[in-house]
Amino acid sequence: MAKEVQIIGLETIPDIKAGDDLAKIIVEAARREGVGIEDGDIIVITHKIVSKSLGLVFDLNKIEPSDRAREIAKRTRKMPEFVELILREARRIVKIRPPYIITETRFGHICLNAGIDRSNVCGDPRVCAALPRDPDREARKLREALEKLTGKKLAVIISDTYSRPHRYAQIDMAIGVSGMKPVKDYKRKVDAYGYRLRFKMQAVADEIAGAAELVIGQTTEKIPVAIIRGYSFEPDEEASARQLSLIELGYRDIFEGIKLTPKSNG
Amino acid sequence: MAKEVQIIGLETIPDIKAGDDLAKIIVEAARREGVGIEDGDIIVITHKIVSKSLGLVFDLNKIEPSDRAREIAKRTRKMPEFVELILREARRIVKIRPPYIITETRFGHICLNAGIDRSNVCGDPRVCAALPRDPDREARKLREALEKLTGKKLAVIISDTYSRPHRYAQIDMAIGVSGMKPVKDYKRKVDAYGYRLRFKMQAVADEIAGAAELVIGQTTEKIPVAIIRGYSFEPDEEASARQLSLIELGYRDIFEGIKLTPKSNG
Repeated sequence: MAKEVQIIGLETIPDIKAGDDLAKIIVEAARREGVGIEDGDIIVITHKIVSKSLGLVFDLNKIEPSDRAREIAKRTRKMPEFVELILREARRIVKIRPPYIITETRFGHICLNAGIDRSNVCGDPRVCAALPRDPDREARKLREALEKLTGKKLAVIISDTYSRPHRYAQIDMAIGVSGMKPVKDYKRKVDAYGYRLRFKMQAVADEIAGAAELVIGQTTEKIPVAIIRGYSFEPDEEASARQLSLIELGYRDIFEGIKLTPKSNG
Repeated sequence: MAKEVQIIGLETIPDIKAGDDLAKIIVEAARREGVGIEDGDIIVITHKIVSKSLGLVFDLNKIEPSDRAREIAKRTRKMPEFVELILREARRIVKIRPPYIITETRFGHICLNAGIDRSNVCGDPRVCAALPRDPDREARKLREALEKLTGKKLAVIISDTYSRPHRYAQIDMAIGVSGMKPVKDYKRKVDAYGYRLRFKMQAVADEIAGAAELVIGQTTEKIPVAIIRGYSFEPDEEASARQLSLIELGYRDIFEGIKLTPKSNG
């Protein structure tokens, strides 16, 4: 009777290198682990292995920092080579607030350091992975490859960890989406009591990315892919994670300029 | 082999009225639906039924708006009685940005309209439900009652829908937590390659609240409670959702003052 959704983490995905066929690797892991891939599954893939397969891994020893990178590096106490990489990968530097560098990615996502980081790359702190430059395109390519290999109708979400305004600690969110509407629109829908909802739109792709992280983890788990099974998404061939970005949508942020009043100060 | 977490939505919770014994109703529904409640389950409860059980349901016909409420109502084109309720329930009005009223709740949560809304209350647009005034306390009371009835060790999360900065559409988040650490701290932990993570803290309680909404839905589903089964949370008798609020923690918001540049304008 109870309605059930499963979050299944794949535990046997090997280390990914540039040029690896991710779709094939995922299908093989799902088969090996006895879960397979079924019609209607949503495959959540952490961006890190997508970036690795695309070769977006950078050795800071081989990067020549510009004067601007050196200046920002000094103010933020970061390595100039790391800052140079941020300048190259970001669409725009939104604000430098030492020690933080707040950036906008090429796909309209506000985050620290253009999303570049060193965790789960290779263990060498001078080697970094950048975000895919067009995560929606990568999600679509992966979905098409996965559907071809399995003969099933699927959705794909590429996830990244996200530092949020107002809230402490990070959650995972969707930076690339293919095959499903990222937003469930309740406007004009009627609730269980007949009241017409006016304002509610649910960012299901972000909730699914966050749900996947409950099995993905960040350290020794080595689970970079989760299958969400049993959730009825709304199919959409043209869907995009940009539909979750206020910048890409051209919408105003109603919380812009809000000042928090920390309790200890007030 | 694959690691699995289940999200189980309870479909037979009846309409909740003031004074109802929620813990007993949840245990009975879980039994009736054949899923039961097991050691280590996380019970996610939408605030709406907690508010109803606490009698935090208000008939706007019986509210006398103050002059301030009338003035704000005029600017934001809302009902003066609704604005009066917001003024009574909020700790602080953060900003009036017509038609939005941005507020801080008594527990340090930035949201619209002090979290008061009309959906899933009773169908009458003049009847509203407010947020519990201390959701952590309600989560603790519910956890203690659920543990007593079942003899199991549990965690409880009270969830609410949340409009976010920077992102379009809403997700559910944790406004009350009991029995589990709301944040998984990876600082000082080592990743799968031996790289020491420096920055990563995962807001698992928010991710779990979002995951629960995948079965909860907002309209005719009438699923106000989900059981998260198979996730190994870190037990904590003193845990609180305030550990997710920058305001309550007294921390600075690194994104404060950030201006988005909508693509269509730039």
